[in-house]
Amino acid sequence: MDHLVSQAESAEDMFCNSSPCCNDAGFLQKNNSLDEKSRMVGAFKESAKNQMCDNSERFTRAETDFSNLFARDLLPAKNGEEPTIQFLLEVVEILTNYVRKTFDRSTKVLDFHHPHQLLEGMEGFNLELSDQPESLEQILVDCRDTLKYGVRTGHPRFFNQLSSGLDIIGLAGEWLTSTANTNMFTYEIAPVFVLMEQLTLKKMREIIGWPNGDGDGLFSPGGAISNMYSVMVARYKYFPEVKTKGMSAAPRLVLFTSEHVTLHLGKKKTLLHYSIKKAGAVLGFGKENVILLKTDERGRVIPADLEAKIIDAKQKGYVPLFVNATAGTTVYGAFDPINDIADICEKYNLWLHVDGAWGGGLLMSRKHRHKLSGIERANSVTWNPHKMMGVPLQCSAILVREKGILQGCNSMCAGYLFQPDKQYDVNYDTGDKAIQCGRHVDIFKFWLMWKAKGTTGFEQHIDRCLEISEYLYNKIKNREGYEMVFEGQPQHSNVCFWYIPPSLRGMPDGDERREKLHRVAPKIKAMMMECGTTMVGYQPQGDKVNFFRMVVSNHAVTKSDIDFLIDEIERLGHDV
Amino acid sequence: MDHLVSQAESAEDMFCNSSPCCNDAGFLQKNNSLDEKSRMVGAFKESAKNQMCDNSERFTRAETDFSNLFARDLLPAKNGEEPTIQFLLEVVEILTNYVRKTFDRSTKVLDFHHPHQLLEGMEGFNLELSDQPESLEQILVDCRDTLKYGVRTGHPRFFNQLSSGLDIIGLAGEWLTSTANTNMFTYEIAPVFVLMEQLTLKKMREIIGWPNGDGDGLFSPGGAISNMYSVMVARYKYFPEVKTKGMSAAPRLVLFTSEHVTLHLGKKKTLLHYSIKKAGAVLGFGKENVILLKTDERGRVIPADLEAKIIDAKQKGYVPLFVNATAGTTVYGAFDPINDIADICEKYNLWLHVDGAWGGGLLMSRKHRHKLSGIERANSVTWNPHKMMGVPLQCSAILVREKGILQGCNSMCAGYLFQPDKQYDVNYDTGDKAIQCGRHVDIFKFWLMWKAKGTTGFEQHIDRCLEISEYLYNKIKNREGYEMVFEGQPQHSNVCFWYIPPSLRGMPDGDERREKLHRVAPKIKAMMMECGTTMVGYQPQGDKVNFFRMVVSNHAVTKSDIDFLIDEIERLGHDV
Repeated sequence: MDHLVSQAESAEDMFCNSSPCCNDAGFLQKNNSLDEKSRMVGAFKESAKNQMCDNSERFTRAETDFSNLFARDLLPAKNGEEPTIQFLLEVVEILTNYVRKTFDRSTKVLDFHHPHQLLEGMEGFNLELSDQPESLEQILVDCRDTLKYGVRTGHPRFFNQLSSGLDIIGLAGEWLTSTANTNMFTYEIAPVFVLMEQLTLKKMREIIGWPNGDGDGLFSPGGAISNMYSVMVARYKYFPEVKTKGMSAAPRLVLFTSEHVTLHLGKKKTLLHYSIKKAGAVLGFGKENVILLKTDERGRVIPADLEAKIIDAKQKGYVPLFVNATAGTTVYGAFDPINDIADICEKYNLWLHVDGAWGGGLLMSRKHRHKLSGIERANSVTWNPHKMMGVPLQCSAILVREKGILQGCNSMCAGYLFQPDKQYDVNYDTGDKAIQCGRHVDIFKFWLMWKAKGTTGFEQHIDRCLEISEYLYNKIKNREGYEMVFEGQPQHSNVCFWYIPPSLRGMPDGDERREKLHRVAPKIKAMMMECGTTMVGYQPQGDKVNFFRMVVSNHAVTKSDIDFLIDEIERLGHDV
Repeated sequence: MDHLVSQAESAEDMFCNSSPCCNDAGFLQKNNSLDEKSRMVGAFKESAKNQMCDNSERFTRAETDFSNLFARDLLPAKNGEEPTIQFLLEVVEILTNYVRKTFDRSTKVLDFHHPHQLLEGMEGFNLELSDQPESLEQILVDCRDTLKYGVRTGHPRFFNQLSSGLDIIGLAGEWLTSTANTNMFTYEIAPVFVLMEQLTLKKMREIIGWPNGDGDGLFSPGGAISNMYSVMVARYKYFPEVKTKGMSAAPRLVLFTSEHVTLHLGKKKTLLHYSIKKAGAVLGFGKENVILLKTDERGRVIPADLEAKIIDAKQKGYVPLFVNATAGTTVYGAFDPINDIADICEKYNLWLHVDGAWGGGLLMSRKHRHKLSGIERANSVTWNPHKMMGVPLQCSAILVREKGILQGCNSMCAGYLFQPDKQYDVNYDTGDKAIQCGRHVDIFKFWLMWKAKGTTGFEQHIDRCLEISEYLYNKIKNREGYEMVFEGQPQHSNVCFWYIPPSLRGMPDGDERREKLHRVAPKIKAMMMECGTTMVGYQPQGDKVNFFRMVVSNHAVTKSDIDFLIDEIERLGHDV
């Protein structure tokens, strides 16, 4: 334990402060032990030697026996400093090994086990909680096991989710965020993060194209909540009395969003695109008042259908309130025609929301941002940097064009949080804009990545991911054994296709083939997971049976990983 | 860069796998470069030497010049492994220095600056984002500055929020969670975390006292959202048609919660206890249908007032739906009498929710859990381990006694996430129970802390924090210059008091004294923040002018820190 040089490191904070009431530095050590006082004298000398405010101290790794150490021996325990540092370094070693392996293609994407296997305890990995503490040695083993039986979402062959990859700067940002362990509700307890959020949201609004980047926004816990905010704000804009009196104060309000139609296969019924439906149910509109819009063969909303349904709703005496245009649908990656939809919204005076949770990232690319043309006409936008921009989970923004409306919608004037008699400008206290009270710090990792990559770095990331998926599209569009789910080049990095195993290639179209084909993707996926070689999503959509949906959002993916995926599908699917 | 021994570390995963389809380990290296293939050969040899599946590799710290390195040089860049490790180690050094200082009483709690000062750029700390990337050296400086200008919420003299402290095990858990970078919606992508959540929630339900720990639950993004879930589930239980048809399908529903009455001072109007109000507004009930209940002088709901208001509401033709009993109010730390409230809820067939966001932790203490007596009769419970149990932010549970109702309430059957044709038991896919789609992994840090401390460790934590605040209460209850806001020993760790500066001590009660006293706490708080010595919250409540609310939830706090706080209030407040 004596490897750690415990030189005093912190008294320089006092040197850096010129507030008059702090001239008497002595009071800071009041009630400190004598030992601490002598350390402080050392610190003054140390500080004079060093550059002012440069307070780094190098850690030293020491062999430590963790089998007799427990959580209670760590800080704030007496003499807890060295075990704390050594324990954290040991954890970091586990994590850096994991990071290395994440990018190593000779490592599996996952080591699959069924729930009952993990619950029974794999090789001593016991998930049950007990009354008595475990040693730090056991805690380190638990950390290793947790990673061992998890899924490497940053692996270059993990294609299963819209969020993938492991950005090192973003990771560092998250580590710092958890160390700072604060939340976003007031400037008082999160001064730097609150300002970073404000500046970053403004930048995002500028990129959307709102004049001067004016408006408002928040980072929220995911795209579904961001979309829910948009519906709430729309309701508040047109029917502010609902906040006080409830939905009974408003007429029957209807919301419109893209239909990715229901599917009937046996008794299973699946509904895609559910976040606006969910918002409708949660907020008291009712699911049936969320009206689904027809899409073309590429999954884009047909504007004429929107107008027809608005007219129909009005004729029934309902009040159309809100239209969601999706910029990047989950399955097809389709971009609804925002300008055409905006024309209709203007004509009928409806709130236009753009759900760019998945596609918003394309705004960063000069080559691809035209796909969101018209987004500057939206009243609100959802944009999840944790999807296409590779930011670690979670990072989702709701952006609103009208300033003050988030506050108006959600403010409850909670006096104990937002005192008007504070010494600083309380307009920076954002808590009352949110439906949450404490809000997690989701901004720092994103801000840090933006600093480290620059706007141009995000552009390169987007362009590269779309180039990789174009490579996939070109590779399979005419390849034997593949059928594309829709014609033409995808708009986003989504590539949707069926793999047709040799046993089905000669079979005429019809119910039997459909039923068999429906089972192909699940079978191949199950084998992929058992093998742990790669992961890719599948789902049915509308009247289309299960197909693979490939997406690329991880900048670690190369063309050779795409080749690997295709070879792997063919290897595993050959005899299906 | 050659300090890092780059031995292959990962091929042993293949050794550990016995799945028949993986016997041909060769396919895993398909498309890997020759270089990677040769590393794998080394890995096989290495693996044979080592214990099976033991894959740790010691990192080596190396002096690295980060001024010419950029994010693009890190993994997955070619040769990115060593810069990645060195960069992460550098970040860890910054973080461990911060951790050390957090517990060092000679360090300030914060280095306060006004928003405009930080926005102008403190000593080169530039918050603005730019098009071009910054060097990793600058990124490291940005990390240091972010921490420097933030608030040390783990400092033993930070008493400002219900969440405080910096638990080292919890911190390690958060670092691991961000490295795993996945989310909770399916077992497929979060197998271990999903099971940990399930087991931990069951344990919490057992502690609440529900038979066999049966029921349901989720970790949600904070107490306000957890409380919102409880209202949604209650609505679904009694009026399931609202999910489909909206609030207009239900009669006028009313909710009841504790009143911490409105305050009028000048033109300012503040409302406390806002999460149920907020839920009422968000979910379409309307704020005015959230009826506030009278409290006794200690801040506890008066059951007779609840019954009177239920009867009154029914007479008006409204339908009482839901009662929130608070276990640990934010300001007074009061516990509503749950059994008395439960009797009334049973009599009138209402949903009983217990908001134990702050007080739920006391369930872990044999000495204090009687304060929540009757909680086993609740239909739902909010319990935030990130408050009294010292778990890092965020960690909030909503627990529901009836199994299946969360799913019924929130399910939208999103086919692309929750395929019934998966190869594992899809009952473990929790995504459709939540109002979010992607849900952050909030469980791991808590699970790891529970492992490391045991149930008994949490009990000691709770008992110690309450003992420290009892010390404060005893110290000031009869001390000159202090007045307690309410009589008698507090139920939780909240101690509410006025400091009466010498200038007000002789003054007779009346408007002038009230107005002057109202300004005392804000003035002292502002000086505390300028000095950075300590932080404690204040607020008005009801007809009571601004008073200090002390809370203790950080196990680093000692009696000497309490002495320090009192000395500091007197030092700063003497001439106010």
